[in-house]
Amino acid sequence: MGDFALYGGSDEEYAAVRKYNAEVEADPDSFENWDNLINAVTAVEGGLNRNSSPQALATFRDAYDRLLAKFPLFFGYWKKYADAEFNIAGPESAEMVYERGVAAILSSVDLWTDYCSFKMETTHDPQLVRELFERGAACVGLDFLAHPFWDKYIEYEERQEARDRVFALHARIIAIPMHQYARYYERFRGLSHQQPLTSLAAPETLARFRSECEAEVAALGGPPKPELELERDIRTKIDSMYYDTFTKTQSEVSKRWTFESGIKRPYFHVTELEHPALQTWRDYLDFEEAEGDATRIVCLYERCLTTCALYDEFWFRYARWMHAQKGKTEEVRHIYMRASTLFVPISRPGIRLMWAYFEESCGRVDVAKDIHAAILEGLPDAVEVVKSWANLLRRQEGLEAAVQLFKYHINTPTVDMYTKAALVAEWAWMVWQTSRRADAARDIFTENVQWYADSRMFWERWFQFEREQPRRPDASSQAGQKPRQEQVGRLQRMRHVLDEMRNRSRLSAAVKMQLAQVYLDYLVQCGGAPAMKEFLALDQEMFGPASVANITKRSGDLKTNGAPPPGELDAASRARAEARHFNFFELHTLPDPEAQGPADFN
Amino acid sequence: MGDFALYGGSDEEYAAVRKYNAEVEADPDSFENWDNLINAVTAVEGGLNRNSSPQALATFRDAYDRLLAKFPLFFGYWKKYADAEFNIAGPESAEMVYERGVAAILSSVDLWTDYCSFKMETTHDPQLVRELFERGAACVGLDFLAHPFWDKYIEYEERQEARDRVFALHARIIAIPMHQYARYYERFRGLSHQQPLTSLAAPETLARFRSECEAEVAALGGPPKPELELERDIRTKIDSMYYDTFTKTQSEVSKRWTFESGIKRPYFHVTELEHPALQTWRDYLDFEEAEGDATRIVCLYERCLTTCALYDEFWFRYARWMHAQKGKTEEVRHIYMRASTLFVPISRPGIRLMWAYFEESCGRVDVAKDIHAAILEGLPDAVEVVKSWANLLRRQEGLEAAVQLFKYHINTPTVDMYTKAALVAEWAWMVWQTSRRADAARDIFTENVQWYADSRMFWERWFQFEREQPRRPDASSQAGQKPRQEQVGRLQRMRHVLDEMRNRSRLSAAVKMQLAQVYLDYLVQCGGAPAMKEFLALDQEMFGPASVANITKRSGDLKTNGAPPPGELDAASRARAEARHFNFFELHTLPDPEAQGPADFN
Repeated sequence: MGDFALYGGSDEEYAAVRKYNAEVEADPDSFENWDNLINAVTAVEGGLNRNSSPQALATFRDAYDRLLAKFPLFFGYWKKYADAEFNIAGPESAEMVYERGVAAILSSVDLWTDYCSFKMETTHDPQLVRELFERGAACVGLDFLAHPFWDKYIEYEERQEARDRVFALHARIIAIPMHQYARYYERFRGLSHQQPLTSLAAPETLARFRSECEAEVAALGGPPKPELELERDIRTKIDSMYYDTFTKTQSEVSKRWTFESGIKRPYFHVTELEHPALQTWRDYLDFEEAEGDATRIVCLYERCLTTCALYDEFWFRYARWMHAQKGKTEEVRHIYMRASTLFVPISRPGIRLMWAYFEESCGRVDVAKDIHAAILEGLPDAVEVVKSWANLLRRQEGLEAAVQLFKYHINTPTVDMYTKAALVAEWAWMVWQTSRRADAARDIFTENVQWYADSRMFWERWFQFEREQPRRPDASSQAGQKPRQEQVGRLQRMRHVLDEMRNRSRLSAAVKMQLAQVYLDYLVQCGGAPAMKEFLALDQEMFGPASVANITKRSGDLKTNGAPPPGELDAASRARAEARHFNFFELHTLPDPEAQGPADFN
Repeated sequence: MGDFALYGGSDEEYAAVRKYNAEVEADPDSFENWDNLINAVTAVEGGLNRNSSPQALATFRDAYDRLLAKFPLFFGYWKKYADAEFNIAGPESAEMVYERGVAAILSSVDLWTDYCSFKMETTHDPQLVRELFERGAACVGLDFLAHPFWDKYIEYEERQEARDRVFALHARIIAIPMHQYARYYERFRGLSHQQPLTSLAAPETLARFRSECEAEVAALGGPPKPELELERDIRTKIDSMYYDTFTKTQSEVSKRWTFESGIKRPYFHVTELEHPALQTWRDYLDFEEAEGDATRIVCLYERCLTTCALYDEFWFRYARWMHAQKGKTEEVRHIYMRASTLFVPISRPGIRLMWAYFEESCGRVDVAKDIHAAILEGLPDAVEVVKSWANLLRRQEGLEAAVQLFKYHINTPTVDMYTKAALVAEWAWMVWQTSRRADAARDIFTENVQWYADSRMFWERWFQFEREQPRRPDASSQAGQKPRQEQVGRLQRMRHVLDEMRNRSRLSAAVKMQLAQVYLDYLVQCGGAPAMKEFLALDQEMFGPASVANITKRSGDLKTNGAPPPGELDAASRARAEARHFNFFELHTLPDPEAQGPADFN
């Protein structure tokens, strides 16, 4: 929140500011809170002006800066901020705000138009104004709804009475498929008849047309036409050339018409979009990619990601598309960076992990580590992220580094108990996967079961681990360690895990039943001749009616440990205890094109 | 259908019978078709009677026998059948039908009442009639709605003018919690005042009451009361004793009232029940089991399984409950047998497999095999069943027997291609699980991939198999075999499976994406330092937009094999290709007590 509190002071006038500021801090995702705050800071001291106090100005700037750091895509606030700065501190300050704005939201027709409009009112050097218009044209000139920008540009050149430039602008615009393409062509036709021949087309085109016309006359066998008549013929050819441009543009417009009319909300907002709107963007991107013009594709992605900035799906897509273009490493990095640092909610860490993998693949392992660390600052209990970090360390530095990371998080007091449970299980699993030292992995489970018996993930991994052991005693377990149950078979070990789970865990009956199914499957697939007796007994105990069920088994030798009988977990704990963790890429699915209703982005 | 066609002959009168018979054969699950057929066979020759032709009688019996073999719980048809037999062939024939009926549907109050009613009209020996009433009482006497049966029994004894027996019957009935308990108690009180003291209670009870009364008189210090007065005092005590019985019965009735009123359809029908009706049965069974009276529990299960006969859930439950009782092996067997042979639709083979496991656990391996064979007659493409059978053979006879079974089904021409694909994968998986011979298992995959590349199950198992291999070349692979790629690492093998899958398979993009996620996870968890480069490339190819995706990879060396480019599977094939197979016990879940609407039993 910056150091706003310094300014508010005890001054009563700032009571409203303080109130809305507190609300913003309590719920920074609420757009309404921000809007209230902005209105409040603009209203202090009877409205800001050139003579406002430094405190008022600082409060005002702090509020805008924080709002626009969080929601850089609100083009209207950039404009308001710049207007206010203009009134308070003059054109240089306003220009700085505009520059920050167009850097944050490259694809806003409105913001570029406002900026250029401001520039042409405040700058006398046409060279500087034109430079800005050209920067804007590169960013938003291809937008289907770019007409306000182009209109402003034309207006400027008309004011400068630069007739050649006005004509040249029109000649450029009529080739762009835009909503208002027809209007520009009409105007262009009128203009072209007033232009001298030499400014209607490039010299080589003119030369070609002229020789064509002369050849046609010669073919008829008559005398050479007078220059005026010849020029009329050439103008006809030029008209026809531009008419072709027009019909081509018209056809390009009509191809995009359905997509464009499906875009109901072309600007950014914090609320959800409807599923059909997302589908329109998918279809539109598919279309533009199939057309194959990279400039247009990038332009469309930028528009899409203004509207859909909160939906990681489109950032993933943009990065993948860019990844497939040659030599675009920096562009790919920039996409990941924007998605991760500005837009996609932290609740979906996937795109950030992709960024980390990208940096790792570029050899920037430290950056990859930092990205993981940064995610964990916002999501300290993201099992997937710790696991991903540990695997990064394993790949780049070896098992020991990964184990240290697991231990660090398991020993961090602020980490949730159920997160720790999952991390212990992943640690044991990695030891087994990487080193094949079954005893070492098993020790991790057995030494930690006393703490983490309420975690579903813990048991799932333990079962999976024992299930993967070969039937006979593990030949690869290292000799020379402390005496072990080398003769204990896999069946006994699986049964031991099952008994421990039933006895120690406070997971709900439904989850215990699911875990027991692993053992039933084991009995069917790996059990010996008497296995079905055990199958039926376990089936009765786990799935039988309450009067004969015995899901939480109190077996003899466990009782003597003096363990207290498992109680009940409260609903919140149970949700965490029984949660499943997925890798983000395991959740990649094809979107449902028929989906309706608002689309969640969290 | 029996040999019905012999009877129909060319006789025009049987046209309707033949028509309805054909409809029954076309859709034997349609109750309406059966009802039409029954009406038709009863109507031939102007209605069946003692003089009907042998052809008409045979047609009639054949239709009823087939209907009741399929739907033995239709008590009304047993009654109609018995009535008709009585008219055609006399009481002995009718009695045989009733006997078959009560054997098929033990818990029908109506059928027992009809049978006893028939018996008392046709039999002069009261001993025989009473024996039948007592058999009925054992089967349905505890039913909450047993009053028609008891009324009939009382009616019979009243007709016999056996006043003592009428009184004794009432004394018995008033202890049974039934819907009409109050009516019987009212009648009982009237009767008891007309009964001599000696028939009101057991001699020892009477003796106790008498000495109590005498003691009370003595305590007051008066002279002994006269016998008549003493008898009145004893009668008061007896009244009070029976009143206690009444209030106890009343309380038992009220405990069951909600459950009983939730049973909207107490009889069997072929249509679905509503979810709340199933929940009522679950709750009622929970209640009665908690009460702990085994006779009442069995009685309730039998009632429940008349109504819910098509729902395997209750058969599972009954078997599990019975399994928990001591020394009830035959009863458990009988439950499995009835569920499997008569009631649960073949589309849910689970209860049949449980029966097989039960027989296996009792040492009757041949029966267990026969059960598997019988399921496969109805469901020849049930992967789960072949797998279960193979595991039965593996447990009891060893791997080779199991492999022979897999091969037999894989070589059976009528087995579906996608079933075979799954069986090949299970075969390879079993070889790996049982013998740890990785090369042998891998050979099964590689030699069969040319046939089964369109099966999801095939690739899932192959990935799982390679994923489980140790990182270094498998030390346990047997030496002395033909030269192998001993030096090929796990990563190359996983990648090979992925490439093969992308290249050869016609699975849909969505499924290929899911399968590729296994490889992505492998790269994260087991990949080396450069793994993330491959991760990003694969991510782009599998999950990128169409313009840069390359899901069905045409890699160089596979192209040169001249394999045709994969086409499209039709929708029906794709459904089978992409189906997942689950063990029945993996589908055991806790029912949702809030579920609404009709409950599917298929």
